[in-house]
Amino acid sequence: MLRNWKVTVQYDGTAYQGWQIQPDFPTVQEEIQKVLSDIYRNPIQIDGSGRTDAGVHALGQVFSFQEPRKVKFTEQSFVIALNSLLPPDIKLLKAEIVDEDFHARFSAVGKTYIYVLETSNRANPFLRHYAWNRRNKFNFELLEKAIKKFEGEHDFSAFTIKNKFLKGTAVREIFKTEVEQLDNQIFLRFTGSGFLYKMVRSLTGQVVEVGAGFSEISKIDPLFESGCRLKAAKTAPPQGLFLAEVYYDKKELESRLSSTPVEIYKERFCF
Amino acid sequence: MLRNWKVTVQYDGTAYQGWQIQPDFPTVQEEIQKVLSDIYRNPIQIDGSGRTDAGVHALGQVFSFQEPRKVKFTEQSFVIALNSLLPPDIKLLKAEIVDEDFHARFSAVGKTYIYVLETSNRANPFLRHYAWNRRNKFNFELLEKAIKKFEGEHDFSAFTIKNKFLKGTAVREIFKTEVEQLDNQIFLRFTGSGFLYKMVRSLTGQVVEVGAGFSEISKIDPLFESGCRLKAAKTAPPQGLFLAEVYYDKKELESRLSSTPVEIYKERFCF
Repeated sequence: MLRNWKVTVQYDGTAYQGWQIQPDFPTVQEEIQKVLSDIYRNPIQIDGSGRTDAGVHALGQVFSFQEPRKVKFTEQSFVIALNSLLPPDIKLLKAEIVDEDFHARFSAVGKTYIYVLETSNRANPFLRHYAWNRRNKFNFELLEKAIKKFEGEHDFSAFTIKNKFLKGTAVREIFKTEVEQLDNQIFLRFTGSGFLYKMVRSLTGQVVEVGAGFSEISKIDPLFESGCRLKAAKTAPPQGLFLAEVYYDKKELESRLSSTPVEIYKERFCF
Repeated sequence: MLRNWKVTVQYDGTAYQGWQIQPDFPTVQEEIQKVLSDIYRNPIQIDGSGRTDAGVHALGQVFSFQEPRKVKFTEQSFVIALNSLLPPDIKLLKAEIVDEDFHARFSAVGKTYIYVLETSNRANPFLRHYAWNRRNKFNFELLEKAIKKFEGEHDFSAFTIKNKFLKGTAVREIFKTEVEQLDNQIFLRFTGSGFLYKMVRSLTGQVVEVGAGFSEISKIDPLFESGCRLKAAKTAPPQGLFLAEVYYDKKELESRLSSTPVEIYKERFCF
């Protein structure tokens, strides 16, 4: 029987036009498909848990695909073989042989995104691709209050860009949000059932506007009601955003709710 | 009177052909001189504490220069103005008006370099420009014993590339070396009076060979005696190397000897 694979991958999105394959631009999906197609000597199409935009990073993106023919890989040797062929900014964390009905997108029950702010007059040169530098003095309490407004089930129409990908409702559920400060970095965490196009960056933009004193918390409820994108804050830039984890099991998701944003980020990032 | 400036700068060396200005390649020195020359409307030449090679980073490089004419900068506004004009991978930490006889190179009494190893079968995509990935299992005790061999005054001829820059003796004094592990990163620290061309990377290469079990500590003393580069280990690659601190005062240097490599690295880096 041909095996179905679930693969967890990290990437630095700086050099890519996002996850989703497209003509004329380098994408993460294309890089991975090229390597897999070489190995299997067949064109391989992989299914990501979702798209990430140009410049957005992944600490734990998940994709799945079905082998077109049997290649003698164990879960361990699959990772080693792929990593030796992938470019240095894309590396697999883990590969698992899973049930044939597993699908990286349709089987997902939740995701965690982390957004990293750098609050410093002097932008650290080593963070330029991995954080949004803001010179504002943030009111931490306001950041917390603002981000908590997004917990629960809401119509997030005001916090997405309408596009061809949105089919049906803009109602989504956010299970947990959290803000954590570590020296001059602030980590925003969003764990939810699913996210609309540019939603996390839109929510981040709104939270930052409130935390910096440029907007008020009381403006958030009317945004849910009106669904008016134009009245919401500007979308935060891509380089601060990390797709941290994708969950396929409610218990796994629940067990991660008690981890703080910095714990999730550190575990998967580098230090 | 025209003022003499001491400036501390951080840079990500990935995109540069090193510190030292040269035709046809981007260099850190050139980027800084361009901005200063624009500001002072005069060609400005700066003196670095020393060169860093292509791909090597700085957490606290120091340069000095004398103003050709008075511009109304305070120490604070100098940093803000320069940082707004410098590219995102070069940022000033500090600027100080100093005695006219201060010179970034000639006044230095010591420097600390940090070399970062990543010990993992899977190279982290976010560390690819900031560490040397080695798959070996290292013997930490051997790493420590090997690096300690380099403390004190030695003829480091075997640990440098002979070139036109070396004038006079290859005797240098290393005040302190240290190895520290943090998860799957190992930090090597070298604090000394001065370093020869590619010396820190050569020493790192030797320490790594011993720690990985490919060479023996007993081979180090004969290397000091023979001065034979060809018998020494290969030079470690540039991306793991950080010029961390430059000292202009013996007391400052001594006060930093008790800081661990990770403390020095963290304080200046990003987390």
